[in-house]
Order: sequence, then C-alpha cells, then structure tokens
Amino acid sequence: LWRRQAALAAAREDEEEKELRQRFMAPPVSGLRELRRRRRELRSRMELLIMETQAEMCRALAELDPGASFAVDSWERKEGGGGISCVLQDGEVFEKAGVNVSVVSGFLSEEAARQMRSRGKSLKAKDGKLPFCAMGVSSVIHPKNPHVPTMHFNYRYFEIEEADGTKQWWFGGGTDLTPTYLNEEDAIHFHKTLKEACDKHDLKLYPKYKKWCDDYFYIKHRGERRGIGGIFFDDVDSPSKEEVFQFVKSCAKAVVPCYIPIVKKHCHDSFTPEEKLWQQLRRGRYVEFNLVYDRGTKFGLLTPGSRIESILMSLPLTARWEYMHNPPESSKEAEILEVLRNPKDWVH
Amino acid sequence: LWRRQAALAAAREDEEEKELRQRFMAPPVSGLRELRRRRRELRSRMELLIMETQAEMCRALAELDPGASFAVDSWERKEGGGGISCVLQDGEVFEKAGVNVSVVSGFLSEEAARQMRSRGKSLKAKDGKLPFCAMGVSSVIHPKNPHVPTMHFNYRYFEIEEADGTKQWWFGGGTDLTPTYLNEEDAIHFHKTLKEACDKHDLKLYPKYKKWCDDYFYIKHRGERRGIGGIFFDDVDSPSKEEVFQFVKSCAKAVVPCYIPIVKKHCHDSFTPEEKLWQQLRRGRYVEFNLVYDRGTKFGLLTPGSRIESILMSLPLTARWEYMHNPPESSKEAEILEVLRNPKDWVH
Repeated sequence: LWRRQAALAAAREDEEEKELRQRFMAPPVSGLRELRRRRRELRSRMELLIMETQAEMCRALAELDPGASFAVDSWERKEGGGGISCVLQDGEVFEKAGVNVSVVSGFLSEEAARQMRSRGKSLKAKDGKLPFCAMGVSSVIHPKNPHVPTMHFNYRYFEIEEADGTKQWWFGGGTDLTPTYLNEEDAIHFHKTLKEACDKHDLKLYPKYKKWCDDYFYIKHRGERRGIGGIFFDDVDSPSKEEVFQFVKSCAKAVVPCYIPIVKKHCHDSFTPEEKLWQQLRRGRYVEFNLVYDRGTKFGLLTPGSRIESILMSLPLTARWEYMHNPPESSKEAEILEVLRNPKDWVH
Repeated sequence: LWRRQAALAAAREDEEEKELRQRFMAPPVSGLRELRRRRRELRSRMELLIMETQAEMCRALAELDPGASFAVDSWERKEGGGGISCVLQDGEVFEKAGVNVSVVSGFLSEEAARQMRSRGKSLKAKDGKLPFCAMGVSSVIHPKNPHVPTMHFNYRYFEIEEADGTKQWWFGGGTDLTPTYLNEEDAIHFHKTLKEACDKHDLKLYPKYKKWCDDYFYIKHRGERRGIGGIFFDDVDSPSKEEVFQFVKSCAKAVVPCYIPIVKKHCHDSFTPEEKLWQQLRRGRYVEFNLVYDRGTKFGLLTPGSRIESILMSLPLTARWEYMHNPPESSKEAEILEVLRNPKDWVH
C-alpha cells in the first residue's frame, strides 16, 4: 500500500511539473497545490490569470524574436510573497521586453493603505496594521524599430482586511500604446480591440477608461501625454467581485491581439538614423513620465523590500535628451506630438 | 550742449555694450544700469557674481572644446524676471554642458515659500502672498570620455518679504563630482580645492557641507550616492549676509580650478566600448536621482511658468538601463560602486 501511494504521489508530481512547464514561465508564488486547494477564492483565480497572461505574452514575444530568450527570475520578498520577472534584452526585434508577476502579502500601515487607493479611503486597522494581499501582472515592451510602438499593460488586484474582519478589495489596470510615429490604422486597431473587450461587459466602460488613460499618462511639465492611450482604471470595486474579475480577464486576454499584430506588421520596416534618434528622444519622455508621475513606480520606490530591478524594468534600454529639440512643422515628428498634446478618439 | 550730451550718452552706451560682451554671456536680467544704481544691495552683487561665474565657466569649457560653441538663450518669465541659458551640445569633449542663470521675482504662496526652505519655516504673508526674489547659477557638465567625470554646481540666493516688512534671506549651493571610474588623485584634488575655499571662512564648513552633500545626493532605492560628493548647503542665513555672501563667492570662484584641470588631464584618454557602456549606465542613475529626488528639479517641474528646457538641461544627452546589471567583483566598475555605497573622506 505504501509503495502504491508513493508511486501515485510521484506520478502526480511529475504531471504537475509538466503542466507547470507548459502553462507558466515558473512555478506560481503561492504554489500550484495551494492554488488548487483554494481554487474557488478570487485571489487564486486572479493569480492563475496573471500567470497565464505572463506566459501568453512571453510566448508571443519570443516567437517574434527567435534569437533572443527571456531571463526568468523568481524572487522572494522577505516581508511576504514574491514574484517572477521575465526580461528579454537587446534582441533582434525588442530592445527590452519585461513581463512581471508579483504576489505580495503582509501588513500595511493605515497611511500606506490609503495611498494605495486612488480615492484615498481610510481603513480601520487593528493595532495599526492591516493584513493585505496585492497581486498583478505588469509589462513594458520597447521594440528596436522606431515604427513599432512601445506597449505597456498592468492588471492588479488588492485585498485588505480591516479590524472588524471585513475585507476591502479592488481591481486596477490598463493597456496603452506609445508610438514614436503615428500610424492611424494601428491606433484604430489597438483601441478597437480594447473597446471590444470592454463592450462585452458594459458599453460605458471603454469611453470612461479611455479618458482616464489620457488623463493619467499626462506629462504635466511637457503638456503632452506619454502615448496615444488605451484604457486605464483604478480602485474598481463594483458591480461585484465576479463581474469586475470577468472584465479584467477580458482585458488581459486582449493584450496579445491588441499589440502583437502591430509588431508583426512593422518589425521589418526600414528606418533612417533620424527616425531612430526621434525614438530615443521619445524614450526620454517615457523615462520622465515613469520617474516623475507614475503612481506605481513611485509607490514601488518608496516601499521597503520592493524589487527595484523589476520596478525599473519599465525604463528603456537607451534614452536621449536634447536641449530645445523642436521638430519642424508638418513633419512626421510634429504629427505625433500634436496627437500627444490633443488626444483623439480613435473609435466611436 | 545737447549734441555733446547725446555724444557722451552714446559713448557710455558703447562702452557698456563692450563691457557686457567681455564680461557676460548676455545682458543681465535686471539690466546693467539698474544693477549699477543699486550696487550696494546684496541682490545686485549676487546677480553680478552669478553672471561672472557663468561666463568664467563657459569660457573655460569652450576653450577645451574649440569646435563646439554655446547656444545662449535669454528668456523671460511672464510672472517676473528671467534667465540666461548657455548650452553646448554634442561637442568633441562635452556630450552636454549647460550653465544657467536665473533671476526670478514675484509672489509666492505661504505653502510654496515653506517648501523652498529646507527647514520648512513658516512665513507670514499679506493677503496670502509673499513678495520674493530668487536667483542662482546652476550647471551640469556631461563629458564624452568616460574617464572625465560629470560635474554639477549651483549657487543661489533667496529673499522673501513678510507681511510686517521684514525680509528673510538665505543662501544655498554646492559643487559635486560624478565619475564613471574612480581616480583617487582627481577625487582628492576636487575635494581639496573645495576645502580650501571653505577653510578661508570657517574650518567647520567643509566637514559639515561635505557630509550634507553625501546625504543629499543619495539614491535611496539603489542604496548609493549619485557621485563622490563635494559640498552642499541650503537655507544658510548666518553668521551675516555679508559673510555668507563672501563664502558663496569663494565657492563660486573655486568651480573652475576644481574641475577644469581634471577635464584637461583626461579628455584625451583612450577608452573601450565597455567603458563607454558603463558610463551610459551611470548616466541612467544620474537621471534617476534628478527626476526622483532632486528638490530643485521637483520644485521647478511643479512651478508654473518655469522654463522646463533649462531645468531638464541637467539630464545627459544619452542614458541606458540594463536589467540586473552587476559588475564583476574587484573590477574597476565595482570599485566606484563601493565608494558610492560607502562615501570616503578624501581630505583631512
């Protein structure tokens, strides 16, 4: 009997190993067995979704850049939880492509918890501490070719337990595009794919989250947006946990169809040294937004025990700042600036 | 009589023009005649000092990079005052060298005024507004050769008038060095020159301001300083206006002898592509400090009507971020990192 049980256990482990290697980039932070045990809980379903999204994106990118490969780092956070960072650097197609998962838990101060919510709700803590759980998938893709846009997405889920045992939860996320040059067809494809994902759930979502995206990715000191937008939302806790999760799932599933066709279409486009230079200057603006304004980056840099290399993976491999660079009127460079200064509606 | 007076006035104007061109990069913001009229006031003497410092530095740099030349932009701030930005870009020796003067006046809110002082003193305003005057010279020099360090200096003076007519004033400033590779001889020369400038006024100043510099230029999320330091001070209003001005003058006069010999010594050193790459990664850290932590940059980006191009002139022409870059133990790259993590005393 003992031998049979041991053989069965070994077979089960082999199978799990195989499944893991097929489905994910690395074993999930919470462990596959633990995720199975509490499979009905939303945080388990969300952890599986972010792991799948990471794997889907990494596979799609690796297929387009066969010479390069993803470095996969699993890391632990001594305060609780950990993450998996997948980074492809200096490939043929991608300058830098990072897809991170993090699943973090522990205790927050009331102040830190308030800062995490965009609406700044206050929470009642027991002995000044709030048990919390935060998880998300986050990605920035910087391609080499200036005719392939940079893309960013992030989907995240938070749970905080108050002193009286009530759990507060919310979702946040978004997907947005930062082209060096404007291609209207691509802009329409990108926004249309996002709109379709939103429209399955509520027709009000796309217009609302499209505007939120334009407002959020605003580089105030330049008077321009980081890119041509997409969708962005934060602190969403209605109509119900299940419905918001289904919406987030649709958005996560839309990431590959949003972006990968655009990469395929342009990754072999020819370009001039001047076009590469303009891309480098735009990369500089990307750095400005991320370091000066991005709430996630700022929160990460201030949080003790956070993994700096994973947070700053969003920065491009190279960037450039020229004093008083102003593209000539009616140039291709001026065309994208116009759209960054005055956001357009790409789909109706 | 009328003719004679007109001839005399014209001759005087010619002479002033000539003097201007010889002494300064552009006419001072407050006008030479106005500065002469109130020549005994400290703000006039400070404006002349910052104009002279700008010109001395620009001339010294231009001499080392004869192929390149400074773009000189005089700009006005509609809320009051203006500035003169001198920028040399993409020369033989310098990647980007900027020397800015600004002389700004107008009204501050109580909140903004408090933010300007590092000690956060509150000030009593009349109808919520405080008349103020702020002036300074500020410079960042990024050379091409990785064996020539980046240098930064800034000397500034503030005046604020409270509701009861009392004037608060203070000085701030500093000079600091950011090498890509450590050269002990250069580090000692740099610190020794600064120490000598300080010691003329008070032997306590150099050790105090050396430590303040190490503390200020700290990139917290990296656990390292931006460079090997120098001196830094802020909010200094004792022992007396005249004495602090004389100290600031000594510091400003030390900028050229601090730095220019180091540039001369190394600007023709040979270097490898790997050394250039390490320089680019260090430039990335420079950008991180300036955009995430530097009080002056943050204050500038948030101030309405400030000249963004002059503020962000401090950013390098090019920078680089690699995921998980760690130089090998006992390499030249690890040697400088060690000093950035644990600041050293270069002179005693």
